[in-house]
Amino acid sequence: MIVVVCLNPALDITHHVPAVRWAGVNRPTAVHERPGGKGVNVARTLHALGAQVLLTGLTGGVTGAGIEAGLGRLGVPARFTPIAAETRRTFTVVDGDGVVTAFNEAGPEVTAPEFAEFMGLFDRALSEALAVVLSGSLPAGLAASTYAALIEAATAAGVPVLLDTHGEALRRGAAAGPAIVKPNLDELAGLTGRALASAEGPDLTAVTAAADQLRASGAQAVVASLGPAGLLAVTGSGRWLARPAPVTGNATGAGDAVVAALARGLALGHPWDERLRHAAALGAAAVATPVAGEFSPADYANALSSVALQRDEEI
Amino acid sequence: MIVVVCLNPALDITHHVPAVRWAGVNRPTAVHERPGGKGVNVARTLHALGAQVLLTGLTGGVTGAGIEAGLGRLGVPARFTPIAAETRRTFTVVDGDGVVTAFNEAGPEVTAPEFAEFMGLFDRALSEALAVVLSGSLPAGLAASTYAALIEAATAAGVPVLLDTHGEALRRGAAAGPAIVKPNLDELAGLTGRALASAEGPDLTAVTAAADQLRASGAQAVVASLGPAGLLAVTGSGRWLARPAPVTGNATGAGDAVVAALARGLALGHPWDERLRHAAALGAAAVATPVAGEFSPADYANALSSVALQRDEEI
Repeated sequence: MIVVVCLNPALDITHHVPAVRWAGVNRPTAVHERPGGKGVNVARTLHALGAQVLLTGLTGGVTGAGIEAGLGRLGVPARFTPIAAETRRTFTVVDGDGVVTAFNEAGPEVTAPEFAEFMGLFDRALSEALAVVLSGSLPAGLAASTYAALIEAATAAGVPVLLDTHGEALRRGAAAGPAIVKPNLDELAGLTGRALASAEGPDLTAVTAAADQLRASGAQAVVASLGPAGLLAVTGSGRWLARPAPVTGNATGAGDAVVAALARGLALGHPWDERLRHAAALGAAAVATPVAGEFSPADYANALSSVALQRDEEI
Repeated sequence: MIVVVCLNPALDITHHVPAVRWAGVNRPTAVHERPGGKGVNVARTLHALGAQVLLTGLTGGVTGAGIEAGLGRLGVPARFTPIAAETRRTFTVVDGDGVVTAFNEAGPEVTAPEFAEFMGLFDRALSEALAVVLSGSLPAGLAASTYAALIEAATAAGVPVLLDTHGEALRRGAAAGPAIVKPNLDELAGLTGRALASAEGPDLTAVTAAADQLRASGAQAVVASLGPAGLLAVTGSGRWLARPAPVTGNATGAGDAVVAALARGLALGHPWDERLRHAAALGAAAVATPVAGEFSPADYANALSSVALQRDEEI
């Protein structure tokens, strides 16, 4: 089983309107509501891949109940620790030209006793876990060391961890020695203070140096997601660059698809080249699908056959 | 007890942002969530006035649960019939300059068995009712004759009804003989096909003729809300014009405050002049308060002392 931790899930509400009447009253022609947050997207993707998954985290109030009801409809196994505060919403308006405007609420305040209860749930889940995914931002009230504490608990239980977050939570988490961290270019640049891209695209030498810096701090491997340029993995057994064929669509959720594929490869003990081929292909398939957490198996199969993989000095 | 029927309540969500980034990601600095819908505002106002009130209607899903939880926090007595579909939301963005943009979801589909269950609840509530308020739009799946059916049931039980809606539901409802209908100028113009206002303001002769037309169709009295120009009541015992002192603020919910005051006067058997003085004053006090369903008692008392009341040929 893969345990996916989503401490700050969201209820994603999308309103479609032909044209937004600013300073007026709009009547959406379609309304969609679904469980969201990066960890939720990872768990949905793993579930769609046929992997055994357990989504855990914190939910509160009627918005939290809405997330749990939505996951039940999707068939994604989930067990959340209840909190007193209300889980956050994201509200997105999409107009007829596809212009997207988002209004993202801040996460709830989580109390120390609530997080202690979650730690108990997490510890119990570890006994059945092949891998753990820690994904997304931390809600208010949780220290930046929170992911580091979860990584230590998983390591003590012999379960490898994939961490996907940003800022101080990433820096502290990486120092706790997770099997993989998956920053995107912005997150990696922000953390290491290095310029990693130019107008021509990512500077792979600089990305490698930044990944080495993160590995020196504790992370066992770094998989940097480079957008359309693919994935650069810097690991204890060498470097790989995995580039998918070009694809058009919505990049939201593509990073979560990459994380899902990497976590599956980690849980199954697949070699790095296979992990990266699948991760790049699943990321590309996710771009082709408008909804984060969803992909078409046909797109995935097509993308898999066209991923270009380079190793070490070939890069 | 005053029974307030709100068949299409909403969960009103408001995001405050300093300046909206269109086609971007916004992080609201404040989020407010409260039960909404015209009937909810009427019930909140009656509750704040110290009147015994029971709010009834239809709620579904986690959004419906959010409305019920919010009413519980506000202390407003409520009893809803559960429906399978999800209750609607309204989503409002307010920027730092006070520019308001609203996204209002359509109401849920209500099934015939669900409405039959509500009718049972309504019939039981009638046995304790001094007056009934029917307020707001009808959700999908309910016929335009729905309010007429509720008025017939209340009339059979000897309970007077105040109706505040628009379009076909108002036309059919008025024909069922409610004690009072309270259209605004737009609703009255739409229903009667008459032009009721010019650039100088409402044409009181035309409004009177439109009200007479609505009374001829069945309504016992018509109270037309004229915005800042006040209220024009056309009743079986004559005409009244009630004008509050000028007030600046947010007119949203002012009509619901007028309905609450009229319903209280109806339940207590107050004479028309007293009803109208209170209704005009409470409407003005509601304008001075930014949240629909709320008012300051001091504003209400001040407004009450300055309402100008004219009768029949004085108008």
